[in-house]
Amino acid sequence: MDRVERRAVLRTGLLAGGVGVAAVAATRAASGPGPAGQDAASPASGQGSRAARPATLPFRGPHQAGVVDEPQPFAAFVGLDLPKGATRQTCRRLLRVWTDDIERLMAARGPLTDLEPELAAVPSRLSVTVAVGPGFYAAAGLEADRPSWLAPLPPFEVDRFEPHWPQTDLLLQIRADSPVAVAHAQRRLVVGAQPLAVQRWVQRGFREPLTAVRPGMPFRNLFGQVDGTVQPATGGAEDGLIWLGSGGLPAPQGLAGGTSLVIRRIAMNLDTWDEVDRAGREHAIGRRIATGAPLTGRVESDVPDLAATDALGFPVIDPVSHMRRAMPLAPHERILRAPYSYDDAPGPGERSNSGLVFVSFQADPVRQFVPIQQRLAEADLLNIWTTPVSSGVYAVLPGAGAGEDLGAALLA
Amino acid sequence: MDRVERRAVLRTGLLAGGVGVAAVAATRAASGPGPAGQDAASPASGQGSRAARPATLPFRGPHQAGVVDEPQPFAAFVGLDLPKGATRQTCRRLLRVWTDDIERLMAARGPLTDLEPELAAVPSRLSVTVAVGPGFYAAAGLEADRPSWLAPLPPFEVDRFEPHWPQTDLLLQIRADSPVAVAHAQRRLVVGAQPLAVQRWVQRGFREPLTAVRPGMPFRNLFGQVDGTVQPATGGAEDGLIWLGSGGLPAPQGLAGGTSLVIRRIAMNLDTWDEVDRAGREHAIGRRIATGAPLTGRVESDVPDLAATDALGFPVIDPVSHMRRAMPLAPHERILRAPYSYDDAPGPGERSNSGLVFVSFQADPVRQFVPIQQRLAEADLLNIWTTPVSSGVYAVLPGAGAGEDLGAALLA
Ligand code: HEM
Ligand code: HEM
Repeated sequence: MDRVERRAVLRTGLLAGGVGVAAVAATRAASGPGPAGQDAASPASGQGSRAARPATLPFRGPHQAGVVDEPQPFAAFVGLDLPKGATRQTCRRLLRVWTDDIERLMAARGPLTDLEPELAAVPSRLSVTVAVGPGFYAAAGLEADRPSWLAPLPPFEVDRFEPHWPQTDLLLQIRADSPVAVAHAQRRLVVGAQPLAVQRWVQRGFREPLTAVRPGMPFRNLFGQVDGTVQPATGGAEDGLIWLGSGGLPAPQGLAGGTSLVIRRIAMNLDTWDEVDRAGREHAIGRRIATGAPLTGRVESDVPDLAATDALGFPVIDPVSHMRRAMPLAPHERILRAPYSYDDAPGPGERSNSGLVFVSFQADPVRQFVPIQQRLAEADLLNIWTTPVSSGVYAVLPGAGAGEDLGAALLA
Repeated sequence: MDRVERRAVLRTGLLAGGVGVAAVAATRAASGPGPAGQDAASPASGQGSRAARPATLPFRGPHQAGVVDEPQPFAAFVGLDLPKGATRQTCRRLLRVWTDDIERLMAARGPLTDLEPELAAVPSRLSVTVAVGPGFYAAAGLEADRPSWLAPLPPFEVDRFEPHWPQTDLLLQIRADSPVAVAHAQRRLVVGAQPLAVQRWVQRGFREPLTAVRPGMPFRNLFGQVDGTVQPATGGAEDGLIWLGSGGLPAPQGLAGGTSLVIRRIAMNLDTWDEVDRAGREHAIGRRIATGAPLTGRVESDVPDLAATDALGFPVIDPVSHMRRAMPLAPHERILRAPYSYDDAPGPGERSNSGLVFVSFQADPVRQFVPIQQRLAEADLLNIWTTPVSSGVYAVLPGAGAGEDLGAALLA
C-alpha cells in the first residue's frame, strides 16, 4: 500500500469510526487525486522507493523536521533540565547553540566543536526536533504565554509511573536512518548544551529499517501488530490537527508553526502476550496480525465495519478492542502517532524490558489526545498487557527561518 | 577499499608488525590473485553491493553462520545457564529445540510455536550462532573432552568486572540487518528454551547499517575510529586461525568445524575522550581518524611503517599506541574481530553508558588472543579511556549437517 492510500485510510477510518459511515464514500472520492497529488510531494511521502529518499532533511523552514516526516528507523528522546537560576538569557543562549549545531548535524557536517565529524558525515536523514516543557516557560519568565495544554496530563487509571523519566524542561527528539548518527548527534548536542542544560534521561527506540528489499513495509511493534495505519493526512487540509496556527485557529504566542508532543513510555508484557493465541490477539486490537486489516476487512486500508456481527450476533470488532476505543468520536479527536519500539537489556530476574516509546503530535493535547487516552484508560483490551510508565508533554518550537534561532518568536 | 584489498592489509600488516618488514613485498605478491579470487566468493565478501547481499544466510553446513560473515548491523548476545541438575539429555534436548527454531528463523519463517511469524518473515540476513561455556561440558558429563582453553581468561591488570555479565553455560549470538528481527529471534529462542535454559543477561550492539548510499563503509566505533581494518583472511589459507580442525591441527573432540568466541564488554569513556584533541586521538591508536590510514600512510590499506621517525627522531607510530601493541609478534597471534557498539541508557547521574561489545573468533584463545590482550593490558594508550567490564569464553559449535542437530558430534 502506498502513502497516498494510507492517507485515505485515515480519513475514511475516522468517519467510519465515530462520525458516520455514510460519509465514507464521499471522503474516499474527495481524497482522490487532489490531496493525493499534494501529499506525494510532501517530505513524508516517497518511502516506497529507497533511492528517492533524500539523505538529508532541511533544517530551516516554517516547521521543524521530525514531525510529519516518515519516521526514520532509529530515535533517541533526551529529557534535559535547565540549571537552577536559569533566565530567559540562558534559554536564548541554549537555543542559539542548538540552532547552530543542529543545522550542521542535519546537513551531515559536525558541529564546530566536533572532534569526530566523520560520525556526522554520513547523510542519514537525521532530524533533531527541539521541544520545551513547562519549566522552560517558567525560567524564561513567560508564564503568561504558556499554552494551557503545556502541563502534565490528567492522571489515568492505568498509569504506573516510574521515577526515571520525569517531565523535563526540554526534550530533544533525534531520529535518523542510522543508530550511529543518532548516538553521535545526541552526544554532541548534550555536551554542547552544557552548562546551559543537563541531561536527565534518554529513551532510545527503533522501527524496521527501510531497505530496498521491503519498500513501504509498515512498522510492526513487538507484539507483531501493524502499527500506524490510521493517521491524519499531512501537508493539506488536515494541517490544523497538527500545526499551531493552521486551520483557522490562533497559535499560542510564539508557537505558530509549532505543535505539541506527547511522549509516553508504555511497557509491553511479552510474557503474558505470549500466552494469548492468535485469535485472542486479533480480538484485542480489532485487526488482523498478518495484514493489519480490520477484522471485518481483507486489506489494511479497508474501512472497519463496526456494525458487522458474527453468527451468534456478537460484534466482529469488539467494542473494547483497542482500535474501537481509540477511534475518534469527534473529528478533532485525532493525533499523528510516531511511536518507536524499545527492547532494553532486562534487569536481574527479568526476561525482557520491552515496549513502545509512544509519541504523538497534535495541535492541542487536551482537546485531541486526552479524550482518546481517557477512553483507553477506561476500557481497552490492550491494557491487559500494557502499562504506561512515564508521561510528558512538550511544545515543539516552530521551525527557524533564515538567519533565525529556534525559539526566536517565543523569546523575542 | 574492497574486501579483497582489506584481506591483503591483514597479511601485510601482520608481517610489517612483528615478524619482519622484509617479508612484506613477498606477502603482497602472494596475496594477489590467488587468495583474493577465493575470497571474493566467500560469504563475507560482496558487502560493497547491497543488492547482491542475500536476504537469508544458510543454516546447514560445516560451520555455523555468524562467524566469517560480514557482521550484520544489529546484534544481541544472550548469556544463558542450564538449570540445576541438567544432564547430557538436557543439553541434547535444548540443542534439538534450538536447531529446529534457528533453522526456521534463519529461513525467515517463525518457529513452529511462533505466534508472530510476521516478525520473522522479513528476510534480514539473520544468523544465530550457538556457543557453549565450561558449565555445558560439566552438565553433559564431558569434562574430559573440554578444550583446555574453554575456561576463564587469566585476570588482566585493566579488568574491572561488573557482576551483571558473568560467564554462562551457553551463549546465543544473534545478528541481523534489522533490530526487529534480532529482538524477535532472541525472544523466540529464549522462550523456546525454557525450562532447559534460563537467560542470565543480554548485551545488544549495533554497527552502521549498510545502505545503498554508502556501500562498503567501514565500521566506526563511538570514538569515531575506523575499526576492523586488519583481519585474517577467511575462506582460504588462513582458515587454521579460525576453524577448529583446519590448518593441520587436530580439533578438540566434537568441535571440528567450530571455533572459539571471546566476548568482552569494554566501557568507553566518551567524556574524557572528548577532552583529547584530534592529534592526541590519532596518536593513541596509531591511525588517522578520518581515513583509518596508519600515521605513516595515506589510505586505510597502507602498511604501517614502524621504523618511521619524526623530525625530532621519535617514532611516528608510538610503541604504546593501540595498533602497535595489538599487532602480532608471531604469525599465530591473530584473531577475527567482530565488535559492536553499545550505547545504553545512562544510569542516574551518568551522561552516557557507551562502549564496545568486543567479540573475537579464533581457533585457540589462549594461544591467539591472550598474548594480544596481555600486551594491551601492560601498555596501551587506549586504556586511558577504556575499561573491560566483563569477559567470557565460549566454544562455538560446528555447523549442523543435513538432518543433524547442533552439537551432535559433541554429545554423541
Ligand atoms: C503499547 C501501547 C499501544 C499499542 C501496542 C498500540 C497499538 C495500536 C495498533 C496495532 C493499532 C491499529 C493500527 C493503527 O491504526 O495504527 C492502533 C491504533 C490506534 N491507537 Fe494505539 N497502541 C498503543 C497505545 C496507544 C495510545 C497510548 C494511544 C493514544 C492515547 C493510541 C491511539 C491509537 C489511535 C488513535 C489509533 C487509530 C484508531 C483508529 O482510528 O482506527 N494507541 N494502536
Ligand atoms: C574499546 C576497546 C577497543 C577499541 C576502541 C579498539 C579499536 C581499534 C582500532 C581503531 C584499531 C585499528 C584499526 C583496525 O585494524 O581495526 C584496532 C586494531 C586492533 N585491535 Fe583493537 N580496540 C579495542 C580493543 C581491543 C581488544 C580488547 C583487542 C584484543 C585483545 C584488540 C585487538 C586489536 C587488533 C588485533 C588490532 C589489529 C592490529 C594490527 O595488526 O594492526 N582491540 N583496534
